[in-house]
Amino acid sequence: MSAKEASLHPLVACARGAETLRVWSVIVTIFGDAVAPRGGEISGPALAELTAPLGIGGGALRVALHRLVRDGWLERRREGRPSRYALSARGLAEFAPAAARIYAAGPAGEENLTLWLAEPGLAAPRRAELEREMAGRGAVALGPGLWLEQGANEAVSAELFGFHGAAGTPPGWLRARLAPEELIAAYRALGDDLEALGRRLERARPEGALAAALRVLVVHRWRRCLLRHPDLPVRFFPEDWPGEAVRAQFLALHRRLSVAADPWLDALIGPALQPLRLSK
Amino acid sequence: MSAKEASLHPLVACARGAETLRVWSVIVTIFGDAVAPRGGEISGPALAELTAPLGIGGGALRVALHRLVRDGWLERRREGRPSRYALSARGLAEFAPAAARIYAAGPAGEENLTLWLAEPGLAAPRRAELEREMAGRGAVALGPGLWLEQGANEAVSAELFGFHGAAGTPPGWLRARLAPEELIAAYRALGDDLEALGRRLERARPEGALAAALRVLVVHRWRRCLLRHPDLPVRFFPEDWPGEAVRAQFLALHRRLSVAADPWLDALIGPALQPLRLSK
Repeated sequence: MSAKEASLHPLVACARGAETLRVWSVIVTIFGDAVAPRGGEISGPALAELTAPLGIGGGALRVALHRLVRDGWLERRREGRPSRYALSARGLAEFAPAAARIYAAGPAGEENLTLWLAEPGLAAPRRAELEREMAGRGAVALGPGLWLEQGANEAVSAELFGFHGAAGTPPGWLRARLAPEELIAAYRALGDDLEALGRRLERARPEGALAAALRVLVVHRWRRCLLRHPDLPVRFFPEDWPGEAVRAQFLALHRRLSVAADPWLDALIGPALQPLRLSK
Repeated sequence: MSAKEASLHPLVACARGAETLRVWSVIVTIFGDAVAPRGGEISGPALAELTAPLGIGGGALRVALHRLVRDGWLERRREGRPSRYALSARGLAEFAPAAARIYAAGPAGEENLTLWLAEPGLAAPRRAELEREMAGRGAVALGPGLWLEQGANEAVSAELFGFHGAAGTPPGWLRARLAPEELIAAYRALGDDLEALGRRLERARPEGALAAALRVLVVHRWRRCLLRHPDLPVRFFPEDWPGEAVRAQFLALHRRLSVAADPWLDALIGPALQPLRLSK
């Protein structure tokens, strides 16, 4: 354990589990969970207050913010001092559907799916391009040149044949493909960590800054599992699918941590404007 | 030209074109076009009267009838003499949807399609089995382990993932795959032969037996093109798709030949019971 890790609060260490945190990705979570519902703008020092309990120092924070501004997720507002950061229009557009899913009480009920098909035997370089594009918009590759996607979106290319409708009984091979072993292992590890955190929170009552940091971690890890697979009814997943049990744990912890986190965040960033979350 | 071909009526030679007729397949057409609407049963000698103008002799007819009985399409009714032949329950079940399509005034308007998907990377022997089964029920193979089918039918196997719905804009490669060159060439040849036959019929007025034989040939050749591709709206086919122009020619000729053919067939087989056809 490094010096920095040794200084982490035991509750933070528990919520983080074995996961390696990418600072820019944690900041995306912070904007989604704490900043977007409070007007979408936060000062650099306020961000530093939120990230300090997670072991993220000022240097790492600056590098990550620079990257997020450069990639078009955030905008830096330079009027006066200190700098303020806001979600860009693109950042907001990408957040809304993810937020709706992250805080949803359950998986998709109705099916609203598109199966996309590239020409069989398409040249490998072009297929690889399409594979990158389709992965970028969250479609699941079912096979070479074949993707399953939520919703009825525009095609990334007129080369693709889109078929929009309802699926029959998903065969075993498809359920296994939608739930690869690494994903099931990630959900199981998250379930264990959330259970351990829940037990500790029966005794501990973290104050606002720590509660907010813990909530960021819990949302971050849930998001990182959830958005790796499409939002499908449970019949699409294997019998032993852990996703829904972990969702219940996540929602309960989010609710519990919000009691102390929300008033502290209201004071740090500003009062919540939009009811982006179920839990309040 | 063989002796038999030299004896064919010039109108029959024109309607047959360059197509090699398979006797059993022509008999299937006869049952669909002339026998099914008249109660579904016909005597051997009456069949021989209908097939003689087509150059089908008694020996070839007997071999074909034997095969159709053996394969379960027809039943031979042995009470008394001569033998009578009737469509089996299976034959009737396979006829009804084909007949609806053959005599339809246009292609499918609405889309009611299923895309079937086998596990990508399925072992070749099992995939070949599925390919045979899917081809047997008229599904179009779009690629390895991937079929497009009319309607929302049961899966041939729980291994297949079925996706039922509506298609987006069909890309060029898909339209080309649904209309292979051989099919377009067959439609073009049929269109040329029907046009030549139509011109001859402006002068000639064939009597009943010849009109019935000509109508059998016209239906037979139309059926052989039409049932090689699924019933899809025209947007699924290439710009230069000849199918709909040939449909108009077929329907006009069928109507014209029916004037003399139907009274003759009513006398030969029995009066028409079901309005199976548009043209009357």
